[in-house]
Amino acid sequence: MPTAGLALHTDKYQINMIYAHWMNGTHQRKTVFEAYFRKLPFGNGYAVFAGLERIVEYIRNLRFTEQDLNYLAKQEENYKPEFLELLRNFQFRGTLLSMKEGALCFPNEPLIRVEGTIMETQLVETAMLNFMNFQTLIATKASRVKRVAENDVLLEFGTRRAQEADAAIWGARAAYISGFDATSNLLAGEIFGIPTKGTHAHSWVQIFDSEQEAFERYAKALPDQVSLLVDTFDTLKSGVPHAIETAKMLEAQGKRLSSIRLDSGDLAYLSIQARKMLDEAGLPYVKIVASNDLDENTIFNLKAQGAKIDIWGVGTQLITAADQPALGGVYKLVERETGVRMEPTIKISGNPEKVTTPGKKDVLRIISKESGKAIADYVCFPHEQQARSGGNLRLFDPVHPYIKKTVKNFEAVSMLQPIFEEGDQVYELPALDEIREYHKAQLSLFWPEYLRKLNPEIYRISLSQEAWELKQKMIEDYLGHQEE
Amino acid sequence: MPTAGLALHTDKYQINMIYAHWMNGTHQRKTVFEAYFRKLPFGNGYAVFAGLERIVEYIRNLRFTEQDLNYLAKQEENYKPEFLELLRNFQFRGTLLSMKEGALCFPNEPLIRVEGTIMETQLVETAMLNFMNFQTLIATKASRVKRVAENDVLLEFGTRRAQEADAAIWGARAAYISGFDATSNLLAGEIFGIPTKGTHAHSWVQIFDSEQEAFERYAKALPDQVSLLVDTFDTLKSGVPHAIETAKMLEAQGKRLSSIRLDSGDLAYLSIQARKMLDEAGLPYVKIVASNDLDENTIFNLKAQGAKIDIWGVGTQLITAADQPALGGVYKLVERETGVRMEPTIKISGNPEKVTTPGKKDVLRIISKESGKAIADYVCFPHEQQARSGGNLRLFDPVHPYIKKTVKNFEAVSMLQPIFEEGDQVYELPALDEIREYHKAQLSLFWPEYLRKLNPEIYRISLSQEAWELKQKMIEDYLGHQEE
Repeated sequence: MPTAGLALHTDKYQINMIYAHWMNGTHQRKTVFEAYFRKLPFGNGYAVFAGLERIVEYIRNLRFTEQDLNYLAKQEENYKPEFLELLRNFQFRGTLLSMKEGALCFPNEPLIRVEGTIMETQLVETAMLNFMNFQTLIATKASRVKRVAENDVLLEFGTRRAQEADAAIWGARAAYISGFDATSNLLAGEIFGIPTKGTHAHSWVQIFDSEQEAFERYAKALPDQVSLLVDTFDTLKSGVPHAIETAKMLEAQGKRLSSIRLDSGDLAYLSIQARKMLDEAGLPYVKIVASNDLDENTIFNLKAQGAKIDIWGVGTQLITAADQPALGGVYKLVERETGVRMEPTIKISGNPEKVTTPGKKDVLRIISKESGKAIADYVCFPHEQQARSGGNLRLFDPVHPYIKKTVKNFEAVSMLQPIFEEGDQVYELPALDEIREYHKAQLSLFWPEYLRKLNPEIYRISLSQEAWELKQKMIEDYLGHQEE
Repeated sequence: MPTAGLALHTDKYQINMIYAHWMNGTHQRKTVFEAYFRKLPFGNGYAVFAGLERIVEYIRNLRFTEQDLNYLAKQEENYKPEFLELLRNFQFRGTLLSMKEGALCFPNEPLIRVEGTIMETQLVETAMLNFMNFQTLIATKASRVKRVAENDVLLEFGTRRAQEADAAIWGARAAYISGFDATSNLLAGEIFGIPTKGTHAHSWVQIFDSEQEAFERYAKALPDQVSLLVDTFDTLKSGVPHAIETAKMLEAQGKRLSSIRLDSGDLAYLSIQARKMLDEAGLPYVKIVASNDLDENTIFNLKAQGAKIDIWGVGTQLITAADQPALGGVYKLVERETGVRMEPTIKISGNPEKVTTPGKKDVLRIISKESGKAIADYVCFPHEQQARSGGNLRLFDPVHPYIKKTVKNFEAVSMLQPIFEEGDQVYELPALDEIREYHKAQLSLFWPEYLRKLNPEIYRISLSQEAWELKQKMIEDYLGHQEE
C-alpha cells in the first residue's frame, strides 16, 4: 500500500537503459511518452480511467533509498559509482498530464502523457503502467456490473480471492469509483474512506448448537445491523424460518432485521421463495443479499429470471477481472530531442495495430451543444486550434478513413489535465466522492448505446488530419528508405 | 509489500463476528480451522503451495495500530470502548501448521491448520487466504510453464500487467519457487534476492537516428550483458543484421553479444531464420530470447514447431494466471470447543462438494519405499497412528469409495509443519533457494503422469476410515434430525 520505497518497483531494463544513456551522455535528452491501451477489455464500449492517485503519490515519493543503491551497487558491478550518485540525487522534474480518475476512456488515445528527460520518463514507466492497468481494469469491470444493477446496492467482497493485498485495497477503491456502494475490506475503508459492509460467516452458525441460537445471539450483539447468512444447513427449511423468528424477536425490541444473505444454490429460486416467506411473515422490509461468484452476466440473468435480490455481493469475478485479468496498457515514445528541437518518432511493426502514432498529442472530447452528448474523441497536436475553437470539424476514423463526419456546434473538452509541471504538482487530488460524481457526469455524456454490456456501439476516436498525415508520411519514409 | 499495518486488511464481518462473540462471552472459545482448495487450477495435476513467508510475517506483526482503533471507533459507533481495548492488546497466541512453500499440494486436504481462540482464528482468515490463494496460484502456473521448458531459461517479465505492486513482487517470488530463473522486477530482486534480468525497450532504438547506432551505443555502455531487441522496425531485414554487425564489433573487442530478443511476429519462423543468420555469421553462441504473451501452451507449441528459442520471457499470462486468475481457497471450521472438550463440526450444503470434512486433520504423503514415488496422500486425525507406523494401509477415494487400494512398505511423510505454537514461531523460514530445492525434491517424488500439462493422471487423496465414518455419521445425524 505505501508508495514510498517503490523506486526499484520497475523492470531492470529501465535502469539499464538509463545507465547506457548516461554512459552515452544522452540521459538528459528530452522525450515525450504516452500511455494508452489498444483494445477495450470485456468487449465493453468504454473503460473507466483509474490509478492516478496512486501514480501521483508514487512520483512524489520517487527516491532511491540507500538500501536500493547498495543493492544496485552489489548486483550491477559494472555500474560506475557516479551513476549511483546520479540516482541518489534523482527527483522527478518532468511534466505529466493525465485523464482524471473516473473519466470514460477509449483505445488508442493517450490517457497519460509524460514529458521529461529520458531518465525521468523511462524510470516511471513500469510502475505507472502497473497501477494504471490494474485500477482501470477493475473500475471498468465494476462499471459493467453497475450498468446491469443501476438501482441495487453493490458490495465489493473480493479480498480473499484478490491477487495479493494491493489488488484488494486498490481494487476496492476502483470499484467504488464506478459506483459500488461499499467494500468488505476494512483497510480500504480506513485508507480511502469507502463505506464498509459485512454480514457473518458460516462459522458463526457452526460455533453454536443450533442455527436459531446462532442467529439470536448475533442479533443481540449487533441489533442495529443484523444481516443473517441463511444457507449453512438448508436455506428454505432452516435458514429463512430461523431468520424470520429472529426478526420477530427484534421487532419485539423495536428493532428490525436488516437483511438475509444467500451464498449458494439457485439464487433465482431461493430469493423468490425467501421473499415470499419474508413477505408472508410481515417482513417486507427485510432485504435479500446474494453472493457466490457473481458478475455482470449472472446478475443480468438472475434479474431477467425475476430474482428478488436487493443487494449484490460481488467478489472473485470483479476483483480479478476474471474474464480478462489484464489491461494491455502500453507506454510509447512519441517525441525525442534531436539537437535543439523535438521531433516526432514512430515505431513500425509487422502487426499494424502496434504501429505508434508519432507526435505529442491531446485528447478533446467533442460534445454536441444540441444534445449535450459526446460525439467522438479527437486526438490532435497541442498546436492545432481548430477543434478547440468550436467551428466546423471534420472527423474520420484513422483505421477506416472512409468513415467521415463533419460536426459543428460543439464544445471540445480537453481530457488531459496537467498534474505535474516540471516536477511541481499542480493538480489537487480530488476526494473520492468527487471522483464518483465526475464519473457519473461522464456517463451522462454518452448515449446508452455506447454503454450497454453486449455489442455496444463503437465510440469513435478521430485523429486530426495533421496527425494522420504525419503518421502516413513517417510510415512511407521508413518503407521507402527500406526499399532503397 | 510491508506486512505491518495489515490488521484491518480483513473483511468487516470478521471484526463484527469477533465483536458479537465478545458481547456473547464466546470469543475465547477454542476453534480449529483448515484452509484448502476444492479444485486444481488450469486442469493441472497438482498445485505448488506458496505464501507461507508472507503469512508468517503477517501474523508476527498482527497488531491494531492507534489509527486502526480510531477508525473503528468512528465507523462502528456501536462498538463498546472495552472491545477496542481488547483489540489494542491483541496478539496471535494460537497454533498454526502449514505445508512448506514449494510443496506439491492437492484438493481437499488441509494446506494450513489454525488452532486458537475464535478471535485469533477468525482474524487471520481473510489476509491468509488472500496471500495463500494468489501465491499458490502463480507458483502453480509457473510450474506448468517450467514443465514444458525444463531445460530452457525462464524469465518472469509481468510487472506492468500484474494486478498492482504486491502481485508483481510476490508473484515474481512464486514463479522463482517453481523454477523460473530470474525476474525483471528489481524490487523483487532487492527484497528476496531473486536474480534479475533485462534487455532494452523499443524506445532505446527510437531515440537514435538508426537501429545500428542504437545497438552499438548500447553495446558500448554495457558490453558484458548485451541483449538486443531486434523487432523495432523489421526483425529479419533490419534487427538481426544490425545485431550481427554489433556482435562483430563486440568480438573485435574480445566481447560477446549475449542474446537477441524477439517480441512480435511469428516467433517460430523468426527464431528459426534468426538462428540461421546468426549461425551463418559465425555466432552460434548468441542466444535467442522470445517474449510476447507467452504461456505454457504457446511455448509448448512453439517448441513442437522447432522454434529456436533458448530463453523465454513470460509476462501477463503468468503474473495474472490469465486462464484462471483465482484459486478458490477456503477456510473452514472443523472443531469447536463445547464446555470442556473439542468436538468436530460440519457444514452441510446443497452443493455436495461444499460439505466440509469434520475434525482436525493431518496430511500424510505415502511414499513407496520400493519406487521412491508418492502413492497417495492420506488425510487422517492426529491420533490415528496406523499410517504413521508404516504397516498395511487401506486407501480409498472419499468421493468414490469403491476405488480402493492396500499399500505396504511405505514411508508416511507428515506434510503439515508446526509454524506457530501458542503464538511462538517455531519454524525458521527457509532461504528462497532452499525452497526451490525442496520443490524440486517434491517433484521427483511424482511419476511424470501426474505432472503432465494436459489430462494428468489424478493423484489420490484418501480419507482415513475413521474420518470418513465421522463425516457420514454427522451428515446422517443432520439429515435424520431434519426429517424428524
